[in-house]
Amino acid sequence: MTSPREPTAEGVAAAARKVAEILPATPLLPLEIDGRTIWCKAESLQPVGAFKIRGAWHRLTALSPDERARGVVGVSSGNHAQGVAWAARRLGIAATIVMPVDAPQVKLANTRALGAEVVLYDRPGGEDRDEVSARLCAARGATLVHAYGDPWIIEGQGSTGIEIAAQMRQWAGGEPDLVVAPCGGGGLASGLALACPDARIVPVEPEGWDDVARSLAAGHIERVATDAPPTACDALQTPATWPINFRVLQARCPFGLVATPAEVRAAQRLAFARLHLVIEPGGAAALAAVLAGKVELGERTAVVLSGGNTDAGAFAQVLSGTN
Amino acid sequence: MTSPREPTAEGVAAAARKVAEILPATPLLPLEIDGRTIWCKAESLQPVGAFKIRGAWHRLTALSPDERARGVVGVSSGNHAQGVAWAARRLGIAATIVMPVDAPQVKLANTRALGAEVVLYDRPGGEDRDEVSARLCAARGATLVHAYGDPWIIEGQGSTGIEIAAQMRQWAGGEPDLVVAPCGGGGLASGLALACPDARIVPVEPEGWDDVARSLAAGHIERVATDAPPTACDALQTPATWPINFRVLQARCPFGLVATPAEVRAAQRLAFARLHLVIEPGGAAALAAVLAGKVELGERTAVVLSGGNTDAGAFAQVLSGTN
Repeated sequence: MTSPREPTAEGVAAAARKVAEILPATPLLPLEIDGRTIWCKAESLQPVGAFKIRGAWHRLTALSPDERARGVVGVSSGNHAQGVAWAARRLGIAATIVMPVDAPQVKLANTRALGAEVVLYDRPGGEDRDEVSARLCAARGATLVHAYGDPWIIEGQGSTGIEIAAQMRQWAGGEPDLVVAPCGGGGLASGLALACPDARIVPVEPEGWDDVARSLAAGHIERVATDAPPTACDALQTPATWPINFRVLQARCPFGLVATPAEVRAAQRLAFARLHLVIEPGGAAALAAVLAGKVELGERTAVVLSGGNTDAGAFAQVLSGTN
Repeated sequence: MTSPREPTAEGVAAAARKVAEILPATPLLPLEIDGRTIWCKAESLQPVGAFKIRGAWHRLTALSPDERARGVVGVSSGNHAQGVAWAARRLGIAATIVMPVDAPQVKLANTRALGAEVVLYDRPGGEDRDEVSARLCAARGATLVHAYGDPWIIEGQGSTGIEIAAQMRQWAGGEPDLVVAPCGGGGLASGLALACPDARIVPVEPEGWDDVARSLAAGHIERVATDAPPTACDALQTPATWPINFRVLQARCPFGLVATPAEVRAAQRLAFARLHLVIEPGGAAALAAVLAGKVELGERTAVVLSGGNTDAGAFAQVLSGTN
């Protein structure tokens, strides 16, 4: 489980070039809040509905022919799952995805629709997903594609930041000086840090799942409490970041922020009404923190809307609610 | 009310250049249906949530300094309203918008938020919006910016097709041979016809509001019946197309199609689940006809998702429904 190498800015640039060959840049949408414009990166519009397709593509294209032949195993509540499944299908690689039984139906269905084999594990019952996936990898000789603790994954996710910087040079008068992003395991945030060396990077986690914020404050990796509350932000439900991510985050992020469930829902409603985007709870965490006034805005602020995979019933409930 | 000139392909190209200076191209999202890919143009992601910003920008930038000083009057259920208001604010022009009292709240609020004066008329009670706006123009010396019966508006909306063609050359292997678009008064459809001379253009209207389809079949302009049923597609609720639009449509569209309310809702749900887009009923009409199998797909089919301005309650109801 040790990392073969550290992720680099050059790796992010290479990932961005590879991603640009197969995927158009997602839009960077201006949003006026109290007379100030922030720039929202709509990663929910990727083919799999989340930025995860970037890291998966960078990782899978780096596999040797022999590794490709033996297949890959991913672990994910859904967005990384779909990213790996999408990249694997396109490259003709067999993909197995370990997903929690309580993942959103739409994510399970979409992962299967992309041709991946789904193996369920009992997350609510405390089954360890890393054990399940290690067992599968051993049995099949497959390569584990970790959702965040992997240099290729980090570099791939960082390509988001390369696009943001290019788009802001064209439309916002310069590169971002602040990038606010939802944070689960820290793959996206560490990739953004490498992609945007001159910007402040602020990771945002859901209430009760703020292990990265606490780790940054403590100076060492802390884990989510075993009695963490349930959260609608399934995409950000990771027990702890990994050293390969934390080394980057620690060097670049003075702190992390936390968004409450009500703040997340308010951000989903604003994205609906003003941007006409469907954003899943986890994907709205960064916007939630910005709207709640928890971040001092920069001259040129970018906010990543990281995913849009949410069930219709859940989204209807958010729209119908008032808090 | 006569047109000063006919819209031209050169005018569309000029409009596309002007629009590209201020607005990034909206994304063209691939959508796989029964193993075939169609390309969805997400005009719902324009700053005002609809393609109408294009025509408004092309029209208002063509006004003389004297005309700009006297202001503009627009008539619209909401999307054209916001397009005119947005362009007017950016150019420092006073804008008055005549809107029906039963327009979606979100469209009324957004139009006002863009700084336009809103004058309501009693659409359900049969008040004639053209009379109201003519009165306002006469009183103020303002220029009427018609929603579709205007060469600049047509050319501006046509810039959508220029973007589609460029994006499909890059990502779909060639320009579209079929473009399916929602149709109210025919401004967008006639603009697309000028922009994409080698593609079939298929306009789609809501049930009961199929005046363009009937006009194409009859060979002359027919009006919507005075007892037309209510429709959720407020953006497509126009009583009749204008000669300036019809001349283009008649030359290029063998027929128009009709989408039922249930088909429109199904398209909204699919756009939610698969594209993570909020599409208003009228904006989903073309996708609805495609999903219902009413259009024989081309080799490279583009479908315009023309707008996303819908109230949260209405959208929640669509998501919660099953037909």
